Amino acid sequence: MDWKEQLEKLIGRDKVSTKSEDLTKNASDYTENLAYLPEIVVWPENTEDVQSIMKFCSDHHISLTARGAGTGLSAGSLPVAGGVSLDMSKMNRIIEIDEDNMQATVEPGVINEDFRQAVEARGLFYPPDPASKGSCFLGGNVAHSSGGPKALKYGTTKDYVINLEVVLATGEAIWTGSNTLKNSTGYNLTQLFVGSEGTLGIITKIVFRLIALPQKNALMLASFTDAVTACKAVSSILQQGLQPSALEFMERSAVDIAVKYQDQISFETKDEIDAYLLIEVDGNEEELIFKECEGIHEVLEQFGVSDVLFADSADQKEKLWKIRRSIGEMVKAHSIYKEEDTVVKRFHLPELLSGVKEIGKTYGFTSICYGHAGDGNLHVNIIKENMSDEEWNGAKLEEGIREIFRLCKKLGGTISGEHGIGLVQKKYMNEVMSETHIQLLRNIKNTFDPLGILNPGKIFPDLGLETT
Amino acid sequence: MDWKEQLEKLIGRDKVSTKSEDLTKNASDYTENLAYLPEIVVWPENTEDVQSIMKFCSDHHISLTARGAGTGLSAGSLPVAGGVSLDMSKMNRIIEIDEDNMQATVEPGVINEDFRQAVEARGLFYPPDPASKGSCFLGGNVAHSSGGPKALKYGTTKDYVINLEVVLATGEAIWTGSNTLKNSTGYNLTQLFVGSEGTLGIITKIVFRLIALPQKNALMLASFTDAVTACKAVSSILQQGLQPSALEFMERSAVDIAVKYQDQISFETKDEIDAYLLIEVDGNEEELIFKECEGIHEVLEQFGVSDVLFADSADQKEKLWKIRRSIGEMVKAHSIYKEEDTVVKRFHLPELLSGVKEIGKTYGFTSICYGHAGDGNLHVNIIKENMSDEEWNGAKLEEGIREIFRLCKKLGGTISGEHGIGLVQKKYMNEVMSETHIQLLRNIKNTFDPLGILNPGKIFPDLGLETT
Repeated sequence: MDWKEQLEKLIGRDKVSTKSEDLTKNASDYTENLAYLPEIVVWPENTEDVQSIMKFCSDHHISLTARGAGTGLSAGSLPVAGGVSLDMSKMNRIIEIDEDNMQATVEPGVINEDFRQAVEARGLFYPPDPASKGSCFLGGNVAHSSGGPKALKYGTTKDYVINLEVVLATGEAIWTGSNTLKNSTGYNLTQLFVGSEGTLGIITKIVFRLIALPQKNALMLASFTDAVTACKAVSSILQQGLQPSALEFMERSAVDIAVKYQDQISFETKDEIDAYLLIEVDGNEEELIFKECEGIHEVLEQFGVSDVLFADSADQKEKLWKIRRSIGEMVKAHSIYKEEDTVVKRFHLPELLSGVKEIGKTYGFTSICYGHAGDGNLHVNIIKENMSDEEWNGAKLEEGIREIFRLCKKLGGTISGEHGIGLVQKKYMNEVMSETHIQLLRNIKNTFDPLGILNPGKIFPDLGLETT
Repeated sequence: MDWKEQLEKLIGRDKVSTKSEDLTKNASDYTENLAYLPEIVVWPENTEDVQSIMKFCSDHHISLTARGAGTGLSAGSLPVAGGVSLDMSKMNRIIEIDEDNMQATVEPGVINEDFRQAVEARGLFYPPDPASKGSCFLGGNVAHSSGGPKALKYGTTKDYVINLEVVLATGEAIWTGSNTLKNSTGYNLTQLFVGSEGTLGIITKIVFRLIALPQKNALMLASFTDAVTACKAVSSILQQGLQPSALEFMERSAVDIAVKYQDQISFETKDEIDAYLLIEVDGNEEELIFKECEGIHEVLEQFGVSDVLFADSADQKEKLWKIRRSIGEMVKAHSIYKEEDTVVKRFHLPELLSGVKEIGKTYGFTSICYGHAGDGNLHVNIIKENMSDEEWNGAKLEEGIREIFRLCKKLGGTISGEHGIGLVQKKYMNEVMSETHIQLLRNIKNTFDPLGILNPGKIFPDLGLETT
């Protein structure tokens, strides 16, 4: 009996597959056109299943790569070393919504939007809302410390995780913290697991804190004739003490592509427009929201914006958000692309944008830029379009991307704001971390996973290659 | 030349002392009446000094215990193994307040309140406000992930730290993250250092995010004839979607002691009053603050409160806050006490309070309780008063404290919400963590500090003693 048959016998026939279509499905996520086949897919149904699988993999030195909904943009869930693809889609129960304590406990396979709606029905709010919220899993959100538009006012996933049940490489399960809002009891294991991309253990339960649901919101779209000016307006709005719940930047080309590939969306763009800011304000008091919008409008006027569209219905709001949220997917429909999840100090966003464009000219690539401008987080989609495979995988483009990341570092930033490092960004880690720093992270990894079976080949630059 | 003379030669005569009064001063903090003398006190003036000292201590296997203002309540800064007391009081510069990006960079020896005032002068707000804010250092706040009344609305220290410069045991210095609001680049070293109590490395610079300063606030004091009812009102206020900026609970005995030991404070308490809630609301719009206060008042009425005092001047607000903030110090003036920093799910606060009182009766101790009720964080001051030294250090009291912590765990909580584990709570760690969990934390510690020189004897239960 080979190890896959042994695992099937251990876990049960209905929870494993070695069928070609299952292996192929779990070989890819949303990252470029990458594919790495696992040797077997396993669907655990509870913590005990994960413990059994983990123990088995430890005993047999088989690599184990957790997979959520496959919406990742850094290839974090791709089983580059084969082995087991641990598919969390059947661990999808909302275990408890505790209204008394404004907390909820979920399994990692719950879809972000399903959870948001479930807690909203109780008057509670779970803010983190990645663009893929309609399909992405909460477990994946935690594994990458995902953000989303509402991170500006409300923080990212990490700010809502208060406790995690994790299965360690030994097969033991522990809770990393307590179900409290404050905790100074030993090291913060909870936050060490958030963003660890399945390399330290497998998350099997998540406890989120929740907040009161804001009752009302307003949405406006401001058009700019110059993209760098749009970026400048961002800091200015926030420096006035105004606090929008979202402040999203979109280059014109991003909006054009989102509209072009979706027949059901009609949207007119004037010739002279170069970029947009999509701005949301929320709260409970209509008057206060109106006042905030007025304040923002005044700042926009100072930056020469003449055209501000106020969404006047739920439908119109949904249309504008759909344009913003679908950009990544529509860019992918247009061309293979590399996603760079750049993040800098907010005030330096204009320099980042103009720098990215300059670097593109020098290194011969086209980028479509958009993202969470209020957080200084700009998604740079480098599109393949007419580039040859040699150019696409060549040293020149890689050097261009390195230039972008060097610029990020210079502007107080780093190479990923919310997508994680996974497979595709690991070779750039040395642009923002010293070898000492990377080795420290490696040591932590070894502490949790001495056999190196947990999502191997991720986060850490290959030894002896990238660092000099 | 012995090692102390060598260290003096290395760092400079004016930065070290082996004088008795300096050793004595750094032997204690605010915890009970504990004292452990260091062998030498060193005052580094910059990161390079810390690096030199650390390298020296590594080379000579000498233990190194960082010390802030000495306001700690878990004896975290006490040099239980002798060696070097690394006194951070001369690293007290506010390096930069970056208004454009709403961030600030400071050295660890800056006093919390000095920093708050410096950023407020620029219209910015640093919310974390431990009771000792007038003297405690920001470095100590980070080392313990300190809270304070404003944690309820604004979060604790950890929620404001975005990047740290730390000196590792090797003497190398790294930045743990980037100066951005979001970061998904490798493991969250920043949050691993927050709350690590000087056991993983020495914090030499801190980058905080800041928020816009709320312009106005209101403060009210509600009197209850029953303390458990006061605790019940807490959850109810928050469940209405009301969001006070502070929601503090004080037993009558806590207020009585704070008033008794401060001649300058006069405060009348009616005979029938058993407890108080001190409730602050902040914001920019007077009307909205008023509306929140009204909403809170309605809830208070439902809980039978007839007596609500609205502070009508800055002086009166300051007086009420002074009563709250000085309780710990005044309890200490009254008697040696053990501080238990209990924290549970907020809704279970009434069960915690009545449980603590029951346990006190069973195990023969008196407690004075107060704290951040909105966070489920209750400070239990167990006072020595007429207990003999044998009783005070005996097995019965320890078992009583264990009972309190078992109750915390049962109510979804843990043994420290904001004070840290340090020396005095380490023997209770096994009440909330399995041996597997504790060993994992030990392994992390060993990764950073293989020689075991960084603040030895803290956080981890002594091997072979407490766990069974």
